[in-house]
Amino acid sequence: MKKFTSVDDIIDLEELILSAKKIKSDPFENSELGKNKTLGLLFFNSSLRTRLSTQKASLNLGMNCIVMNLNTEGWSLEFENGTVMDGNKAEHIKEASQVISQYCDIIGIRSFPTLTDKENDEQEQVINSFVKYATIPVISLEGATEHPLQAVADALTIQEYKTKRKPKVVLTWAPHPKALPHAVPNSFVKMMKLSEYDLVIAHPKGYELNPEITKGATITDNQDEAFKNADFIYAKNWSSYNDYGKILSNDANWTVTSEKMAFTKNAKFMHCLPVRRNMIVTDEVLDSENSIVIQQANNRTFATQAILKKILEDGK
Amino acid sequence: MKKFTSVDDIIDLEELILSAKKIKSDPFENSELGKNKTLGLLFFNSSLRTRLSTQKASLNLGMNCIVMNLNTEGWSLEFENGTVMDGNKAEHIKEASQVISQYCDIIGIRSFPTLTDKENDEQEQVINSFVKYATIPVISLEGATEHPLQAVADALTIQEYKTKRKPKVVLTWAPHPKALPHAVPNSFVKMMKLSEYDLVIAHPKGYELNPEITKGATITDNQDEAFKNADFIYAKNWSSYNDYGKILSNDANWTVTSEKMAFTKNAKFMHCLPVRRNMIVTDEVLDSENSIVIQQANNRTFATQAILKKILEDGK
Amino acid sequence: MKKFTSVDDIIDLEELILSAKKIKSDPFENSELGKNKTLGLLFFNSSLRTRLSTQKASLNLGMNCIVMNLNTEGWSLEFENGTVMDGNKAEHIKEASQVISQYCDIIGIRSFPTLTDKENDEQEQVINSFVKYATIPVISLEGATEHPLQAVADALTIQEYKTKRKPKVVLTWAPHPKALPHAVPNSFVKMMKLSEYDLVIAHPKGYELNPEITKGATITDNQDEAFKNADFIYAKNWSSYNDYGKILSNDANWTVTSEKMAFTKNAKFMHCLPVRRNMIVTDEVLDSENSIVIQQANNRTFATQAILKKILEDGK
Repeated sequence: MKKFTSVDDIIDLEELILSAKKIKSDPFENSELGKNKTLGLLFFNSSLRTRLSTQKASLNLGMNCIVMNLNTEGWSLEFENGTVMDGNKAEHIKEASQVISQYCDIIGIRSFPTLTDKENDEQEQVINSFVKYATIPVISLEGATEHPLQAVADALTIQEYKTKRKPKVVLTWAPHPKALPHAVPNSFVKMMKLSEYDLVIAHPKGYELNPEITKGATITDNQDEAFKNADFIYAKNWSSYNDYGKILSNDANWTVTSEKMAFTKNAKFMHCLPVRRNMIVTDEVLDSENSIVIQQANNRTFATQAILKKILEDGK
Repeated sequence: MKKFTSVDDIIDLEELILSAKKIKSDPFENSELGKNKTLGLLFFNSSLRTRLSTQKASLNLGMNCIVMNLNTEGWSLEFENGTVMDGNKAEHIKEASQVISQYCDIIGIRSFPTLTDKENDEQEQVINSFVKYATIPVISLEGATEHPLQAVADALTIQEYKTKRKPKVVLTWAPHPKALPHAVPNSFVKMMKLSEYDLVIAHPKGYELNPEITKGATITDNQDEAFKNADFIYAKNWSSYNDYGKILSNDANWTVTSEKMAFTKNAKFMHCLPVRRNMIVTDEVLDSENSIVIQQANNRTFATQAILKKILEDGK
Repeated sequence: MKKFTSVDDIIDLEELILSAKKIKSDPFENSELGKNKTLGLLFFNSSLRTRLSTQKASLNLGMNCIVMNLNTEGWSLEFENGTVMDGNKAEHIKEASQVISQYCDIIGIRSFPTLTDKENDEQEQVINSFVKYATIPVISLEGATEHPLQAVADALTIQEYKTKRKPKVVLTWAPHPKALPHAVPNSFVKMMKLSEYDLVIAHPKGYELNPEITKGATITDNQDEAFKNADFIYAKNWSSYNDYGKILSNDANWTVTSEKMAFTKNAKFMHCLPVRRNMIVTDEVLDSENSIVIQQANNRTFATQAILKKILEDGK
């Protein structure tokens, strides 16, 4: 594995999930694997789970972990080629990525989308520039269009809680006061298709995700209908993809409530966190026994550790 | 020891101080105790001594230490229950504390008071919310009303320098240009009462500390009188408790000077640092041989290491 | 070695470069040397290479490394003596440096010049105050007037790439949109003089560096002439030293281009990075095989590791 910036980079999902499960049962089994190896985590945006769980995962493998907030602690980066750098950008990504590659063995990068420049976001300019110029493996800590480490944790969580071979999994849009990226739903949809689960995507009209990603999935704007017989409800807000980055509605009817959950087959409730209580989901549902959001967050460590382990082993 | 957020959490002070002394004589003796354990330090406010000494203490025990500035690097946290989270708070303390509990083995938190909302501050909303929802031990790196790690270092320092069983210890208010919290004096008063020393608290009228905490202590507004025969002078500024968070005076007559120190019995001068020179205390006193503020700061490492060691041992 | 804040602190350059080369060939050879030792890195300014390579160097030696952004994470420091600290400075350097000395075994500090207060900058107030009051070795991570770790990496790089005993090395000024410090050119000039290379300094009139530092070097305002037969071109911008901190010109004729490089003897191109593309140097030159800026940056790790190793060994 030379990079992990998309669910598409997974070659063998079954093997990956098995590895994550094994790691979970004995997190320190490979604590010599990362000896004298350094993971560099570069953040352009806020993070809690990803930041802490990735540090934890690397430490479990015996790696060193160096964390930087690039915007505030480093230099502003230029990503365009051929420009005369006479403005505020002090360093070109070409140098930065090659230089960091010499100090680290794996680079992790978080770079959220602009939500205003669709073309730029779709190109994953920041992460793909690192992939292009870095000479070591690059992992995404959430890019503009994907959050693949989250998706591995999601797959592991469903694997642990499913009671049938092919559960019904509903990804439902839910209201939120701010315009949010598509990275989490994109990666989740890709992962569910890879897992061959029975996926239904529910959202109000206008909130269609990238059709290239959702192709083949069942899509509805009837949330109640979608919830029927569901085994897993995965709630998430995202802004409009077609009317790029816009909030079209904040319809409180889409909040996940106990009444809605009653339509399901005693479904588990999932969310990647952070979650807005009583916007995305009511306190009642989030605090119920069916909510597995905390366990889902716990799996971030083991999902990431499985990815790092694979990269370290493949690099030997 | 399941938490350490107040001097009241100390069960056996004598044992604790002995442990800290032993650690000081051989800081790396227990460098295997913290193997594969992670300390998460969460800062809502500035820190120098606490940040560095707590990292050092954890490293001495062989722990991993992960540091986060929650405000700037993570998400704004909601602490109220039942709210519709449609504002700027992205994550509820319930999730945050449970999630972090899964990545770490001990959490340390620094959260200063508002000094405007007395009720909120007295409830120690931030730290107590972590204590309530976290599933691992929580230690205070200074809360709204207490700074217990400082108090342990203070007790260790007095223990080392006292020349009689029951020294006279004077906690004196001193002027400062900004409104400061009560956490340090509160914890110090509690610690001196626990140590059964001869404690005198000196401050101008209006600067009475919380009477529940100072109950039983000798209190005076005559600094000169207080200093007489003192063995230790502990200077500290705090804002008004009754007229909550207000600066009532900046009377330069309360600055600790050589003339004032001459009233004492060759007393040692203490302060938790950072200290405003020539406001709290003159250069002459601070630079004198009687000043033990640097040694006091050094003891922060060993005090914290004793607390972490106790938590790790009790958790076995 | 008790401090390393200037090229002048180097006692035996040949030995130092040999040590760095040896470390580069086996970076983990001394991974027990730093056991239970802590390096504290204190940043007052942005950093990428220095921050990451110094962490890496310390980890290679088995040290712990603690990083702090002093301005945002700690307290504002007062450097003047005798002041009444009633303003925004919360802590005096006297206490801060003594306290940090107790938590760490070596301190590294980055503190850029004001470029407005020449006298203050020349005194290296920040770094020299740490040197004065700290009780452990202090290294500069770039001060107001010197960047000695960069210069060691530069010397190592030239050592590796030179094909004759005494190569011709040209330090050339180049245009930049912002006023930059003199630290890198100062240390580079000192290092080239120490290395006894054939040094030529080229800059437009008015950009003379501190004459005490450049004394004895060949200086010209004819860049083309300077490039003739050069073996190494080291490009760097700096602001005026005489008209202190001012930008006198941004003459694009001083940008290093392929046409200019054609005057040289197939010279290697060097720069400390970050570099402004198409201001300092054209894409063509920077992306050519003669550019060794990435290898130069790589040597930061080994140069720093050699310094840290020397300090640790001398401290035994």
